[in-house]
Amino acid sequence: MQLANVRTAVGDRAARVDDDTCVILPCTMRELLTDDLWDIAGADDLDGVAFERIARDAADLAPLISDPDKIVCVGLNYAEHVAEMGRALPTHPTYFSKFSGALIGARDDIELPKPDVSVAIDWEVELAIVIGAPARHVRAADALDHVAGYTICNDVSVRDWQTRSVQFLAGKTFEHTTPLGPVMTTADVLGDGSGLAVRTEVDGVTKQSSTTDELVFGVADLVADLSTIITLLPGDIIATGTPSGVGAGRDPQEWLTDGAELVTSIEGIGTMRNRCRIA
Amino acid sequence: MQLANVRTAVGDRAARVDDDTCVILPCTMRELLTDDLWDIAGADDLDGVAFERIARDAADLAPLISDPDKIVCVGLNYAEHVAEMGRALPTHPTYFSKFSGALIGARDDIELPKPDVSVAIDWEVELAIVIGAPARHVRAADALDHVAGYTICNDVSVRDWQTRSVQFLAGKTFEHTTPLGPVMTTADVLGDGSGLAVRTEVDGVTKQSSTTDELVFGVADLVADLSTIITLLPGDIIATGTPSGVGAGRDPQEWLTDGAELVTSIEGIGTMRNRCRIA
Repeated sequence: MQLANVRTAVGDRAARVDDDTCVILPCTMRELLTDDLWDIAGADDLDGVAFERIARDAADLAPLISDPDKIVCVGLNYAEHVAEMGRALPTHPTYFSKFSGALIGARDDIELPKPDVSVAIDWEVELAIVIGAPARHVRAADALDHVAGYTICNDVSVRDWQTRSVQFLAGKTFEHTTPLGPVMTTADVLGDGSGLAVRTEVDGVTKQSSTTDELVFGVADLVADLSTIITLLPGDIIATGTPSGVGAGRDPQEWLTDGAELVTSIEGIGTMRNRCRIA
Repeated sequence: MQLANVRTAVGDRAARVDDDTCVILPCTMRELLTDDLWDIAGADDLDGVAFERIARDAADLAPLISDPDKIVCVGLNYAEHVAEMGRALPTHPTYFSKFSGALIGARDDIELPKPDVSVAIDWEVELAIVIGAPARHVRAADALDHVAGYTICNDVSVRDWQTRSVQFLAGKTFEHTTPLGPVMTTADVLGDGSGLAVRTEVDGVTKQSSTTDELVFGVADLVADLSTIITLLPGDIIATGTPSGVGAGRDPQEWLTDGAELVTSIEGIGTMRNRCRIA
């Protein structure tokens, strides 16, 4: 099953994606995940009242989760990307976060900072885990029971702000820069998220192309490790890191510019198309 | 004025602290700040219905804000602490974050991780800014207009998890480790937050003692800088960093242990007393 988060007149609503149609469900994505409303997710009506159906192309897509309790990002989790950033392969996962105000939908414009703030804006395709059931002190062997599914994150990064201190957060949470979507494909389809092709294109040119088989720390290990620290909650997002091919690692370096189209794809999930605009 | 966040039978509620009494207000702290309910904050009744009053000592204090949209922490913001951690004085603020699941109230137990997870748990008294009005692209000269007041954070840190990767988050967001409170003193009393004595005691022994005059980046500069990145919202917390005297900087190093009492004080705000317990 694939689910989306659709902006409607009454607020963001979960939607089931049936081929070219979005079936608007009477709940939010977090309610669906928190209250385990999978019967409703699979239905076409409730008490005889048919759910609204809209064309998939016409849906106004919100970030896959509107206001997640946590957005955890994993850095340095593909060996070739670690090398291009000039760092050593980590012995433990590298976690940082971003705030929900950074998120945008799969077709929204990316708000580039004004040029006097930064011009060093970079792309980072990432497989993102969506937590389905609370997870605390779970073992890796049980971790997938807590995963609802997977979506796509482009962890768009303002590189000079990311590296002006020893902590990444400043460059990772600029307002309205992080596309999250277009859908969540459920874990019964994608399993542990391995073996999926991931890709970034800028104005039609492929910049990143890898597979999730290259993850240093896999989905089950990340969920288990994070659950040692804190309770993961339904709707929490874990962006699992990006492969090589980022703009900062190129010679000469390349950045997203006003008007550029960023296309972010993961096999089995879909494609996001975001236009860059100086805010 | 001083405000607290009190657990009641109908949920967490803002309370005005009048000397030894808490006057329970008919709203949450975020509602009070978001909807600018300062008339209600100063009142004793609404439409003739008197607000409940309880003894201050009997109040069950929640974290000052129950579920802030953002908790921004500033690292390396007192010169002597930067030196004791073996780092260079930063040219820009160092930001990281923690999740709201890390927060506890001013009298709650601190949940120490089990010894096989970590024994290196450290203290960090910090002046914390509470945002009152949305702030986006504000200048430092105007930044204090967006500050509702100040509270105390002890940014309790699991040092080996903080330093096992290049990003601090893992060691900064362990569940139920971060006291936030006991009250917010409003900015009309504390101004720009400078000149306040800050102190940590463990089992009656002073471990940190400094003043907020030693901040490398002050309150107005932090608010302005962060507002360049993202919109700060009412109830957002900015913990401004800790002075020297942490356990990791001592010889030999010292850590919080099961049963220890952590007392965290800032002049003009108050004192938090938290007992450490292995969860």
